[in-house]
Amino acid sequence: MADHPTNNSQPSPAGKSTPRFELVTLGDELLLGLTANSHLTWIGAQLGRRGVQLDRNVTISDDADAIARQFRESWSRADVVITSGGLGPTCDDRTREVIAEVLGQELVFDPTLMTAIEERFAKFNRTCTPNNRKQAFRFARGEVLPNPNGTAPGLWAQQDGKVVVMLPGPPNELQPMFLEQVLPRLAQLGLISEQESYIQLRTAGVGESMLETRFQPIFGRYPGLGIAYCAHQWKVDCRVSSPDGKYSRDTLEAIADECAALLGDDFVCLGHDSLAKVTADHLRQSGRTLAVAESCTGGLLSNSFTDICGASKFFMGGIVSYSNDSKMLLLDCPECLLSQHGAVSAECAVAMACGVAEQLSADYGLAITGYAGPTAGKCCDENAVGTVYIGLHSPAGDWSKKLSYPGARATVKQRAVTAAIDWLRREVVREARRAAQPLVN
Amino acid sequence: MADHPTNNSQPSPAGKSTPRFELVTLGDELLLGLTANSHLTWIGAQLGRRGVQLDRNVTISDDADAIARQFRESWSRADVVITSGGLGPTCDDRTREVIAEVLGQELVFDPTLMTAIEERFAKFNRTCTPNNRKQAFRFARGEVLPNPNGTAPGLWAQQDGKVVVMLPGPPNELQPMFLEQVLPRLAQLGLISEQESYIQLRTAGVGESMLETRFQPIFGRYPGLGIAYCAHQWKVDCRVSSPDGKYSRDTLEAIADECAALLGDDFVCLGHDSLAKVTADHLRQSGRTLAVAESCTGGLLSNSFTDICGASKFFMGGIVSYSNDSKMLLLDCPECLLSQHGAVSAECAVAMACGVAEQLSADYGLAITGYAGPTAGKCCDENAVGTVYIGLHSPAGDWSKKLSYPGARATVKQRAVTAAIDWLRREVVREARRAAQPLVN
Repeated sequence: MADHPTNNSQPSPAGKSTPRFELVTLGDELLLGLTANSHLTWIGAQLGRRGVQLDRNVTISDDADAIARQFRESWSRADVVITSGGLGPTCDDRTREVIAEVLGQELVFDPTLMTAIEERFAKFNRTCTPNNRKQAFRFARGEVLPNPNGTAPGLWAQQDGKVVVMLPGPPNELQPMFLEQVLPRLAQLGLISEQESYIQLRTAGVGESMLETRFQPIFGRYPGLGIAYCAHQWKVDCRVSSPDGKYSRDTLEAIADECAALLGDDFVCLGHDSLAKVTADHLRQSGRTLAVAESCTGGLLSNSFTDICGASKFFMGGIVSYSNDSKMLLLDCPECLLSQHGAVSAECAVAMACGVAEQLSADYGLAITGYAGPTAGKCCDENAVGTVYIGLHSPAGDWSKKLSYPGARATVKQRAVTAAIDWLRREVVREARRAAQPLVN
Repeated sequence: MADHPTNNSQPSPAGKSTPRFELVTLGDELLLGLTANSHLTWIGAQLGRRGVQLDRNVTISDDADAIARQFRESWSRADVVITSGGLGPTCDDRTREVIAEVLGQELVFDPTLMTAIEERFAKFNRTCTPNNRKQAFRFARGEVLPNPNGTAPGLWAQQDGKVVVMLPGPPNELQPMFLEQVLPRLAQLGLISEQESYIQLRTAGVGESMLETRFQPIFGRYPGLGIAYCAHQWKVDCRVSSPDGKYSRDTLEAIADECAALLGDDFVCLGHDSLAKVTADHLRQSGRTLAVAESCTGGLLSNSFTDICGASKFFMGGIVSYSNDSKMLLLDCPECLLSQHGAVSAECAVAMACGVAEQLSADYGLAITGYAGPTAGKCCDENAVGTVYIGLHSPAGDWSKKLSYPGARATVKQRAVTAAIDWLRREVVREARRAAQPLVN
């Protein structure tokens, strides 16, 4: 696995035996591979931040018998069972009724819920049909989790010393409901941490074992510290926690700060921001602008920056130059440079970076050119697939860098983009540091 | 759910009672949301094509006790149990040993396997460590699934009238092994169809219920026909099968052809190709080229085309014009047009499409401009978020189209890209048809 956590201790809420969480995701579309199971990834991460690792995720069909069997099983094992899906208005949506029966709960009609559903229909000029009425039923001994983004309210019940949480399937309804209504309730019951249970140091360009070696002198001073590493491509996250509550939040923060200082430019951020977001923040802070040019990554580099809200503040634009002609026309790459060195070369990468920065009047120009595969263009050398040159134009100068990433087309593209953004990040940070220092003669 | 199948019958291998498949995915990284569970999506889709819906997917930690408990449970219920992960060389990788114990199988050292592992290490100039030796053990009564892409071989065993398949975790190792070694074995045992068990009609721009109405006169002539709809954004797939084996493959193909003819340009393709791939094939067939210009989608439109192998044959390049300046500089959008109509306007979309086609000497120019949100730029009207204009320049003329997609930023971007590509597809198909018709005076 590319992404894997190496735990010497998974942080858990201090001083309690770890409660067991199960997530039951419902839907034929998940089992048939028509939709990715994003609820596992998203809920798993949210609970992980609060010190809990899901014990199990089970995905089953939304068939009533299957739901009943699975819920009974999960309920017998876990302290908290979370379900997603099957709360809609159609006859396929049976989660509410099935779970009520297993729990021996009565479903009662809630006029307040019905009014909320009717108001939502009126707001969108749609007519409420009779089958929407079933969405206005709730457990007699339970709570309603109002849904401002859809008609299906969530349901919450505590019974037999356990908790069941039933959430609607659409992510734009499930996610705010979970953050705003479920997490606070779980924290109040002491089933998860009140706040993030670890401090995450995000690093780039250093391998996991090297990171471990560098941090050892610091971590060695704090016996019982919880340390977990998680390696992504190019990036490694290190999560520092205090599983037995021995170290305060302030101490953990001081440890993280010490680690960050030790790492220098290999330190990206504390928390969960993406490399592109961190780089964008540095650019905005220093009032600098960026333009990008790319061939083999074909728009992915641009897209990484434009995924950030408010990108127009620093992002001047991008050029996807997929041919020699477009490199000459749009980026002013000289024809003789292309014929002498080729489009996949250090020289071309620098020319692209400078060209796009000039064309778009940006302070920084970032360029990628390479062979993403599966074939290496006009080049006959099979080993050339995965060869990528990054070019960087900055106020301090122009550079290029060669990288080699054997792998599938999508992987090569993603790795090249990550490496390019990280290089830019380092240069923007260095420039800000230089600007802050007094001139020395 | 945005993507949901509506089945009146899930196709299954003809003439057999449906075998039950369970997938057990192992890994803390899945439960902590660090990695998406891509194995469920991918294996689910592969089995779906062969007429089988996974009964259940369970994701658990790679803890030995948890694996043993879960495998025992799945083995008692299912006819085929597939596992992924935990076959590596480290002490964390315990799937092989745990399942052998549950099945009462002996693990035997296989010198051929050891040689293959050693050769792989030699090829990459790495040293085989003693813990790699455990990867050379296989079930005494079972088969080895060789792994040309990694050191962990897969394992296959039949016992108690059931099948267990153990696959390595990395997708680039799991996927070819499953396609080349697992599917043929399962088909030979009659547990899945020999070939794709349905014919998929991919359509665009028509809602599910409208599609059902249009197909009814055709489907009505074939009682017992299996029909399943699956709606994605903008696209609906219709899968036609013969659950009881009453209709031959040829008949199903004839039915699909009749449906395709009825749909006209709303028909995209038979099978699983993406809209971008189908559009690219049409462009290549007619020898036409494309250039794209985009603002709010920020590179995603370009990237959809450059994800296709051999895109340089038709894709001239793209411009991400994220500012008014870049629209003027790179796309020749007149300043007076921008000040009069604004950057998010039909006029600007057409100017961008024409500008990029001219700049890059392409036959077609496709442009997107809009407000992806969460804020609508300088515009104060909140309703403007999600407003998108598409511009198309073609050999036959220039057009623009207004769309409105309320939703999250990423959703707006994806929908705008899908709609733009579909519009281009229709125009390329129409142009090819016009070119094929004799001139009429």
